[in-house]
Parts: sequence; structure tokens; C-alpha cells
Amino acid sequence: MSEAVDSVGDKRLKVAVLGCGSVGSQVVRLLTEQSDDLAARIGAPVDLVGVAVRRLDAPREVDLPEGLLTTDAHALVSRGDLDLVIEVIGGIEPARPLILAALANGASVVTANKALVAEDGPTLFEAAEKAGRDLFYEAAVAGAIPILRPLRESLAGDRVTRVLGIVNGTTNFILDKMDTSGAGFAEALEEAQELGYAEADPTADVEGFDAAAKAAILASLAFHTRVNAADVYREGISDVTAADVASAREMKSVVKLLAICELKNGAVSARVHPAMIPATHPLASVREAYNAVFVESEAAGQLMFYGPGAGGAPTASAVLGDLVTAARNRLSSTVGSGESAYADREVLSMGETVTRYHVGIDVEDKAGVLAAVATAFAEHGVSIQTVRQEGRGAEAQLVVVSHRATDAQLRATVEHLQEMDMVREVTSVMRVEGTNE
Amino acid sequence: MSEAVDSVGDKRLKVAVLGCGSVGSQVVRLLTEQSDDLAARIGAPVDLVGVAVRRLDAPREVDLPEGLLTTDAHALVSRGDLDLVIEVIGGIEPARPLILAALANGASVVTANKALVAEDGPTLFEAAEKAGRDLFYEAAVAGAIPILRPLRESLAGDRVTRVLGIVNGTTNFILDKMDTSGAGFAEALEEAQELGYAEADPTADVEGFDAAAKAAILASLAFHTRVNAADVYREGISDVTAADVASAREMKSVVKLLAICELKNGAVSARVHPAMIPATHPLASVREAYNAVFVESEAAGQLMFYGPGAGGAPTASAVLGDLVTAARNRLSSTVGSGESAYADREVLSMGETVTRYHVGIDVEDKAGVLAAVATAFAEHGVSIQTVRQEGRGAEAQLVVVSHRATDAQLRATVEHLQEMDMVREVTSVMRVEGTNE
Repeated sequence: MSEAVDSVGDKRLKVAVLGCGSVGSQVVRLLTEQSDDLAARIGAPVDLVGVAVRRLDAPREVDLPEGLLTTDAHALVSRGDLDLVIEVIGGIEPARPLILAALANGASVVTANKALVAEDGPTLFEAAEKAGRDLFYEAAVAGAIPILRPLRESLAGDRVTRVLGIVNGTTNFILDKMDTSGAGFAEALEEAQELGYAEADPTADVEGFDAAAKAAILASLAFHTRVNAADVYREGISDVTAADVASAREMKSVVKLLAICELKNGAVSARVHPAMIPATHPLASVREAYNAVFVESEAAGQLMFYGPGAGGAPTASAVLGDLVTAARNRLSSTVGSGESAYADREVLSMGETVTRYHVGIDVEDKAGVLAAVATAFAEHGVSIQTVRQEGRGAEAQLVVVSHRATDAQLRATVEHLQEMDMVREVTSVMRVEGTNE
Repeated sequence: MSEAVDSVGDKRLKVAVLGCGSVGSQVVRLLTEQSDDLAARIGAPVDLVGVAVRRLDAPREVDLPEGLLTTDAHALVSRGDLDLVIEVIGGIEPARPLILAALANGASVVTANKALVAEDGPTLFEAAEKAGRDLFYEAAVAGAIPILRPLRESLAGDRVTRVLGIVNGTTNFILDKMDTSGAGFAEALEEAQELGYAEADPTADVEGFDAAAKAAILASLAFHTRVNAADVYREGISDVTAADVASAREMKSVVKLLAICELKNGAVSARVHPAMIPATHPLASVREAYNAVFVESEAAGQLMFYGPGAGGAPTASAVLGDLVTAARNRLSSTVGSGESAYADREVLSMGETVTRYHVGIDVEDKAGVLAAVATAFAEHGVSIQTVRQEGRGAEAQLVVVSHRATDAQLRATVEHLQEMDMVREVTSVMRVEGTNE
């Protein structure tokens, strides 16, 4: 570490911001408007010395003092006198080399970049450790909701057993709309796009990529084990039908896209998929584009953290919370807790993960059909919790809810059902979570 | 600071626990059962070197190794080689001198003592600062729910404007029971006592003393201003009637005992009283003995933290989270952020606090009564949002909901109503919170 970087004797801290979009402009606004409060909370003033952008003449939501803007982000993070760098560009490149350069040049880094942390966190954590600097990323999961710090610090004396999160506002808005209005997926997506809750290309949200990145981060912190985005099983919501949502209602349940991280027999699983949860579960009442993370731990029991999961100002709030901690650490020449991967647990595949299925089956309306279906479940070692018969004749349908079994057993059961003569069609398959079963 | 205390070169930390009741025994259990995890998370093993109790032969929920128990708490905290002391005795004496002695002897302190922190926090914070040690107290508010750390650290870059908390499980259980069963206060209290949710002498809970201590702590942290228990306006729930709860239902609301901390025009207010909140408010669905804290801030918007607010294991989880941070700080010879009182804002009296009233009035059923009541409100500068007339003749009742006004104006209005000839009785007065009004 160079001496210039370690010197904070003049008690002013230099910060640079990479990116000035919806989050970056709010970060810059708060840094400016709340500079007195920030100085009091940190113990020293923070000077914004540069903002890296792609185009100097793009319209921005914030007024910037003359001379702060630059298109040369690499030169900015390499100037050697920065104490803190805030990365809110997003994506893998050029965010990764910029963060690595900032750390190598002695700055602590605060980032909101879930994709990068989920894909290549260890590279960043190792660079931070080598540099003796902080790398914080609270804003990467669930926007303004403080969840990473509670997991890492508040629950550090406890043993987390499960994390269930609604961590994508777009999909929660769509599913909530389908639930309250009876709309189908396409119609609800269109409304979300009109209202600005979904992008023109909604793939990252509706197919669960965004939530899977967050699940990887949550599982890593909760279980002190490296879990990356590729370890996370992922199913989106584009196949969820109005009938699925109605069927959930019949069961006094709602459909939510969940990020589920579990510890079972010493092994970790992480997955993202739509699931039915009971209407009485605290996550069921999370409406519109809100996010919430439900945590179960051995001693604390059940905790829930709720709030806005996205948006410029909420995300900026999380960024600045990290900034204050990183700045205080720079002043006292210390670092906060970095990556904790000591447990190094096995990460299970989806097939080994234990869950429950809700299966809708169009069947021939004749004697013996229920026995045949029940036998199919039994052959794969899956026990049945409830069976409900709906309609008669050509409309006859069975709705089966299983007890817990591995996803592989449940899938094999469904494939078996699809091959049976008495089964016309397996109309719906959805996992059931958040129950005491 | 003595050299013996500052030396952690052998990388083992010594911890003592004061008190071995329902929280202390769970703390000791977790320290023992999770010692490997704790060592990995802290970076050094933690050795439990003593547990101070009142009586050596009392029955305990945990097995303690021979020789750890002592009745001489003062000698334990003064032995000079402790790195960390956990205080879970509760109350003012002897907790205060023990914590001060522990700090003076070079230990960082983790406490769950809301009464002491709310009554005399500054004395403790100053002693910690002088000693260069940490004083953490996450467990003092809302049990296992991480709320103090998020307020102090996660929201450090934001501006908190309001905190609404359900921070007493006993009263929430009673009010929830009244809401779901239609029971009166006495009956619901009795059930709470039978189930162990209320003490034989329930005063501290039902009269709001416990919640007021927590409100003082929340307001201090949220607004960077010293607020102590005596600054908090306090009303309990013993006067809440089944009719009040029913009237709330009519308004699609529920009655909750709230701790309310607000920043308005640069001044702070903190109060505890029953209030009607809309059934759609996230706090309305907090059932039984659960706690939740709802935070509004400028950038983050609305956040909620939910979980068990009491109990041995949940409280122990919060204690151990603080312990891990304090232990890591001892190892790196640093301290976390201490008291932040730089803003030093004015603390308003209840009369100056702005709120809304829901008033039930038994009136003479004759022409002009509504005009007379409306005039009384107007004379005190209180504008009316809605008036509802219920019943006729001897049963005639008006239910008035005001717009926002100071509590002094609203009180004066109620006193005025009580003196009016046309008013037989003011049957119910309750504040209304959690609305967008």
C-alpha cells in the first residue's frame, strides 16, 4: 500500500462515483445534500472528486459541479489518492476491472452490482483482502432493505437455516397483479411495462436471472460457503398461468417467485422458482413491487425484512450506508468483515433438494383412477398429503399436494403420471413452500 | 488501558456473562454449542471464563462446566483480563456499576438492558469511549430483530424521518386477542398471563414503560440526539375497550400500542400510546407476541423489520451478534461506532406533537348538534376529516376523525366537548397513525 493512500491525517476523504444513471445520480445528490450529516457520522468530510460516465453530454437527474465528469473511468480509479470508490455501472465489464483497479490503488469499494458479485465474488473479495480494503455490496440485494449486514453481522452468533426471499420487484408486481385481477401473465407483464416496473426486454427479471444472482449472494452469506450464480437452480414466472394462481387461491395460498436458500444435513441449496405459499405467511402480504426477505435461524426464529427492492433513491440509501462504514474504517485504518467462506459446505443440485409439489392432473373419470395416481406417487417414494377431485366426466381433475421429497423423486413422479393412460394431461406443477410440513 | 488487556496476541478471547436467567442460559448454551462457528467468524476462539449469578444452587436451563459460576459479579468484571462482558441481568442496579467496572477494566460490553440504556445511556457511552471499548445493545430493542444496527449503520447515509414500532410483545398479544375474539382488556390480559406472555404484575408492559424505554433508544439512534425514557410521552393499553377495538374495525383499522419517533421541522418527538392504524398498513398484520419496527426515511422510503421481540433464545441471538462484532473489534484493536448525538435536536413535548384523533361522542339527538360539535373543533384550529353518526335518540353517537393538529389542540377540543350541554359523554379518544394524511 502506498503511503499517499494510507494517509488520512488531513481528515478529508476522497470519493469517486462510477456511473451516473438512476442510482448514481441519487448517490451524487445525497453525497452533496447530506454532506454535513455524512461528515458528522463519519468523523470527516467526504469530497466528491470525480464521476465517471459514458457520455459527458447525456441528460442527468442531478446538477454536477463543473469539472467532475470524466469519461475515463480507468484513469479516475487509478489516480492513487482515492479513499473510496462507488461502482454503480452494473454488469460484468467494465465494472470488474475498474473495481479491481480501485482496490489495487488503495480505495475501499462500495458496489450495487449483484451480477458481478454473484458471478465472480471471490475474485473481488480476494483483491479486497490483498489490498487491505473493504468491499461492501448491501445495495446488490433487495435495494434499500438492510439484509446483508444483518445476515453477516447481526446473525453472526446464530445459525441460519433458511432464507426465503422475494427479491425481484418486477415479478412480484406481475404475480400480485395476476392474483388481484385474475389477469394472465402476458397481460400483467404488459401492465408492468407500461408502469415502468418491467423493462422492454424483461428476460432478466421474469426468467429469474436477477433473483438467482441475489440468491447466490444470500446463500453465500447465510451459510458461509461460496455459492455462485451458476449453482442456483432457476425457473422464471413466464409459465405461471391464471389457472395456477386461481388454484393457489383455492388452497388459501398465493404464488410468489422465491429465492430459497436452505441448509439441510450440513449441505446448502439455492434455487429460484415460483412457489405457492400460504396466505398467512408473512411473505404472502408483500404486494406490488416491494421486496422482502424472510430468515429462519436456530435461535432468533423467524425474521422478516421488508422494503423497496429497487429504484434510484432506495438503492442509493443502501450504497451510502456502506459508504459511511467504509469511510469510518478508512479513518481508523481497519476493515470490516470480508468474505466468510470458512464452512465450505457442499452445494446440492436441484434434484437432491427437498420440496413439495402441487400437481393438477386431467384424468379419465373412471373407477380406479385415484388408486392408480396414488400408486404412481408411492412408486417414487413420494407420499401424498391431500388429493382433491374437481369436476366430473371430461372435466375431471385431480389436484394432489405431496409431502416433502427430493425434487428428483417429484419430477420422476410427474413424468410417470404423464405416461399413464388414465391421465389426459398434467396441467400444472408448482412447488409448495413456507409451510410447517 | 493496561497492557494485559490490550494484548490479544495469543488470539483467544475471554468472555464473562453476568446473569444466567432465560436469556443468560441461552447465551451460555450458544457460546458452548456454536464455539467452532463463533471462532471461525471472529477469527479467534472465545473462552467463557465466568458466569455471575445470584444463587449458586438455583435451577438452570443449561449445564455449566464446574467452577464457572460465581456470586461475586464485581470481582468477575474486575479481574482485568476479560476481553468481553455480556450483561443480561437487567434493571438499573447492579447492572450499571458492573458495566462501568467492566469497561474501566478494559472489556467491551454487550448488554440487553433497555431500561438502563434508556435511562442513563450517556453515562455508559461516555465510559465506553473513555475506555476505548465497545458498548453494544442490539438485544435491548425488539429482541432478535436486527434494528439498531440497521438504524445506526445501514441507514447512516440516509435521513430517517419516522419510526413506528410494535416493540412490546405482551401488549400486542393482548390487543390482537381483543381484535380477533372481541374480548375486553381484562379477559385478554388474563389469557396472556395464563400463556406466559404477561407477568403476574403486568404494569411495565401494559402501561407502556417497557415500550417507552425502547422508544427512547430508537429515537436517539434514528435522530442522532439524546432522548431518554423521561422524554417519552407514555400511555398504556389498560383503558382500551372492546368498543374501541370494534370502532377501529368499523374504520378498517386495528388498535396497536405504538412507539412513535418522529422528526418534524428539525425537532424530535417520541411517544408510546395505543393508536388506530389502517388494516392495510404493514404493522397491522403483526400478530400475537411478534414485534416489528417500521422505518420511514427520505431515500430508502418505507422499511419494516419483523420478528420475535422477546424470549431467551431470540434475545441471545441478538446478544451473540453483537458479541461477534465486539470480539472482531477487540482483535483488530478498533471500536465500532459509538453514540451519535451530534444533531442534538430539540425534543418536543407531547402537546407540541402533531397527530390525529378519533373521538366517539354520545350526543343529544337534536338539530344543531353536529354544527355545535364541528364548531368546537374549529375553535381550537382542528379540522375534521370525517364525521359518522351512529344510532338515534338516546343511543345517538358521533364519531369524528380529525385531520392533523397538535396534541394540545386536540386535547383542548376534547375538554371543550366534555363541557358542552349537547354532549352526554366523550366515550372514546384514540390517536390515528400510519395514514398518509
